Amino acid sequence: MAKRTSRRRAAKPRVSPLAHIPFRNIQIPFPPVERITQAEVETLHDASMQILEEIGIAYMDDEALDLWEKAGADVDRTSQMVKVDRTMIMDLIGKAPSTFTWRARNPQHDVIIGGNYIAFSPNGGTVFYQDLDTERRPGLMSDYEVFLKINQSSGVVHFAGEQLIVPHDVEVSYRHLDMGYAALTLTDKAFMSQAHGRIITKDAVDMAKIVFGDDYSDGERPVVGGVINASSPLRYDDRMIGGMLAYAEAKQALIMTPFVLAGAMSPITMASAVTQQNAEALSGIAFCQLVNPGTPCIYGGFATNIDMKTGSPAFGTPEGAWAHLVGPQMARYYGLPFRGSGGLNTSKVADAQAAYETLWSMWPVVLGHNNFMNHCISWLDGGLVASPVKAMVDMESLAMFQRFLAPFEISPETLAIDKIAEIGPGGHHFGTDHTQARYSTEFYANILSTRQNQQTWALQGAEDAATRAHKLWQEVVTTYEKPALDAAILEELDAYVAKRKEDLKGVELYR
Amino acid sequence: MAKRTSRRRAAKPRVSPLAHIPFRNIQIPFPPVERITQAEVETLHDASMQILEEIGIAYMDDEALDLWEKAGADVDRTSQMVKVDRTMIMDLIGKAPSTFTWRARNPQHDVIIGGNYIAFSPNGGTVFYQDLDTERRPGLMSDYEVFLKINQSSGVVHFAGEQLIVPHDVEVSYRHLDMGYAALTLTDKAFMSQAHGRIITKDAVDMAKIVFGDDYSDGERPVVGGVINASSPLRYDDRMIGGMLAYAEAKQALIMTPFVLAGAMSPITMASAVTQQNAEALSGIAFCQLVNPGTPCIYGGFATNIDMKTGSPAFGTPEGAWAHLVGPQMARYYGLPFRGSGGLNTSKVADAQAAYETLWSMWPVVLGHNNFMNHCISWLDGGLVASPVKAMVDMESLAMFQRFLAPFEISPETLAIDKIAEIGPGGHHFGTDHTQARYSTEFYANILSTRQNQQTWALQGAEDAATRAHKLWQEVVTTYEKPALDAAILEELDAYVAKRKEDLKGVELYR
Repeated sequence: MAKRTSRRRAAKPRVSPLAHIPFRNIQIPFPPVERITQAEVETLHDASMQILEEIGIAYMDDEALDLWEKAGADVDRTSQMVKVDRTMIMDLIGKAPSTFTWRARNPQHDVIIGGNYIAFSPNGGTVFYQDLDTERRPGLMSDYEVFLKINQSSGVVHFAGEQLIVPHDVEVSYRHLDMGYAALTLTDKAFMSQAHGRIITKDAVDMAKIVFGDDYSDGERPVVGGVINASSPLRYDDRMIGGMLAYAEAKQALIMTPFVLAGAMSPITMASAVTQQNAEALSGIAFCQLVNPGTPCIYGGFATNIDMKTGSPAFGTPEGAWAHLVGPQMARYYGLPFRGSGGLNTSKVADAQAAYETLWSMWPVVLGHNNFMNHCISWLDGGLVASPVKAMVDMESLAMFQRFLAPFEISPETLAIDKIAEIGPGGHHFGTDHTQARYSTEFYANILSTRQNQQTWALQGAEDAATRAHKLWQEVVTTYEKPALDAAILEELDAYVAKRKEDLKGVELYR
Repeated sequence: MAKRTSRRRAAKPRVSPLAHIPFRNIQIPFPPVERITQAEVETLHDASMQILEEIGIAYMDDEALDLWEKAGADVDRTSQMVKVDRTMIMDLIGKAPSTFTWRARNPQHDVIIGGNYIAFSPNGGTVFYQDLDTERRPGLMSDYEVFLKINQSSGVVHFAGEQLIVPHDVEVSYRHLDMGYAALTLTDKAFMSQAHGRIITKDAVDMAKIVFGDDYSDGERPVVGGVINASSPLRYDDRMIGGMLAYAEAKQALIMTPFVLAGAMSPITMASAVTQQNAEALSGIAFCQLVNPGTPCIYGGFATNIDMKTGSPAFGTPEGAWAHLVGPQMARYYGLPFRGSGGLNTSKVADAQAAYETLWSMWPVVLGHNNFMNHCISWLDGGLVASPVKAMVDMESLAMFQRFLAPFEISPETLAIDKIAEIGPGGHHFGTDHTQARYSTEFYANILSTRQNQQTWALQGAEDAATRAHKLWQEVVTTYEKPALDAAILEELDAYVAKRKEDLKGVELYR
């Protein structure tokens, strides 16, 4: 009686529709698919070295040029071009760790980077928000929080995320502080942040230090990091160099990603695009080692092609798939982890195109043993738009990959020859003890797909996947649970943000 | 002046939107992804042999039982169970060719089966038709012709197709004659047909003989063939055995495909499902060799899981993906070509779910080196529905695979280091002679995807992929061109069909 009353009072909290999918570090149980031969890897390597030795890379920042000059590189102060010979490049990139652990505030959410591991990271750098009720509009802080809550609720997403969406309703001078604060308090997953110049990046490092209690600056246990884009072709700008300097000085993680679209930022052939990408990524990684040897760096690849009809970037293409296989072949040659991108597409809505282009990104990323799959969820329209509807479409495939890459168990128990004999020809196995013992766990339990018959589906509203996804993300956000954070840490974090907001009043920062 | 007039008179025929995609036999340029070890392959082999030796397979046909008995198998006439020891099984399947060429009426459309080749075959066995203007309804002969025209127009589809859709408006007693006639006259691609009992199958062989002039019965150049499904678990029924006998007697192609849904027709574990599938497929292939040694057989895999929430088959799942990798590992162990399925999904409409489940079928099929990918286009709702809208969604990915599997060219010309030097840092490559010479051919040119900016897309009607696909398939059908056929052959074919329609009046055939 008392029990029944108490049950009524404390209404059972609703469970997240993603609750059944565990968090785990995923290892790929087969060798990578290699699109080119080892001899061809060496040909691309040689060509890249030729670029670095004879053409050079522009570093648009005096501090960077000083560092290169001091190291003995051939630096032209007028053109800002830095030429480095292959011995120096190979020596420097050899200092970067091959594998490392990206620490999360909750140690159970630590992420292993490198080897045959693959980590899934959410959307970054998107400007607009869109869902089925909300037409495309500039992102807001409330949207950013929605995406953080989705990422925290999902076992398949390994990172809280970085610039999930740009919150236009927050002042630029302290936008990064509010974003970092939200990521560190609303989630307990690994923390990515922006790398937009020295000030913003240094704040991310300092906030992470408060939360983690130390800075894990041995290079093998970073607590924060971010994406650096080369301003391809052949160029690192001052904003990105500021980010590289600030993260490398603290020995935090850098994801060095040239922005190469074949036919625009590089010659049109994919062989050339991945070679130029290789030169740019290696140069950036070498620079970070110059700043602080042992800084954990991920070799980033974003190479895809331009759509020659519209001049727009094309995502989820066969040529982009090549780059997702050849890129990590190059990274493995240098003993570096590789980053690719998983949710890429150019569709305006979460339709069939969005889904097939996304799978044309995710599959090559997984098969090529990319160690870090960025932009895994929410992307639409070439990365201009973040959509929680698309997030649910992507989440289904990510969860399927988690299952696909799990062990395929072969044992007398799973072979079950005795059950085949017992049922014999023409029978069915629905009711056997073997089936009954396993029916709720043996197969991946889908979150979005429907397998109802057509009549039932029609009676329930004939909803397509996008419509169901729109309901699903709202359910995920409603059932979100905020992870605990020590009160003293929270207080210190609050104080830091308040003080820095004062410091930065009126300071013009990178957007 | 005269030229202008003549131009006006002879309006230029509209070109198929698929015209730029060539027909070619596709080779996979990297080794297969192997989900289990070679030792595990042998474990599954042993377990399968145990099934064949100790449990047996039911053959529900006296002629089949006679053949097995004569060969020395252990036949139980009451239960119809046939037990065969592994020596006999291995000896028989060793007689099947490892590779063969499935001849097409147009020799340029011949299809190579086996090795590292992969062929794309359209939907089969679907009952309902659906497009964006037409709600789901039973298929008609006119629908069947639409699908034939689409397949003929597409360079990526290797087969005319078999039972693309059931034409319910044609009398059952001569339905197969009208279907075969349409396939052989509206297309010049490789001819698949039904294998539903002796009469229907024999008619397909005889019609093919008329068109091809001979029967190519050396086993390495079949001109017709079809899919045999084991009525799993552990059973071949009289209908399928009739098909096996008629095709094998003419040494035409048989695609031996157990219908195993884990948790229903086999134990729930995928290890068990693929082992049972192996036993059933090998038994059927061995039987065909018993009928006629050297008959070309494709080892078919359809294993996937049951959705334990609804009891429906689940397609495009991680467990189905395993089967698409492990199945061909088994087939390679026996030196046999393997058939998987590419367009599988359970969605009711051509939405995101249809697309991601489809890519969750196509990618594993390609990666596992399935040699024959069936149901590549048009499938919806677990194969109940054929939709030309979905056909266009699938065609885009098939064309992308054709490109993805093409050579990745590395040469001084494609590396273009001189162009990287010429443009230097911060420039762009749009206008270089290198780009200009290649811009129309370097990248896969999409047929369905849009990469317009959002404003243009919105102005043009904000059409999602399905809406565009609905327009596209109609354009494909409008621009379809009927392939030429020798008048004498056509006359003979007409006479055959007319005569057989008389012969079969009132005869009850398999539907």
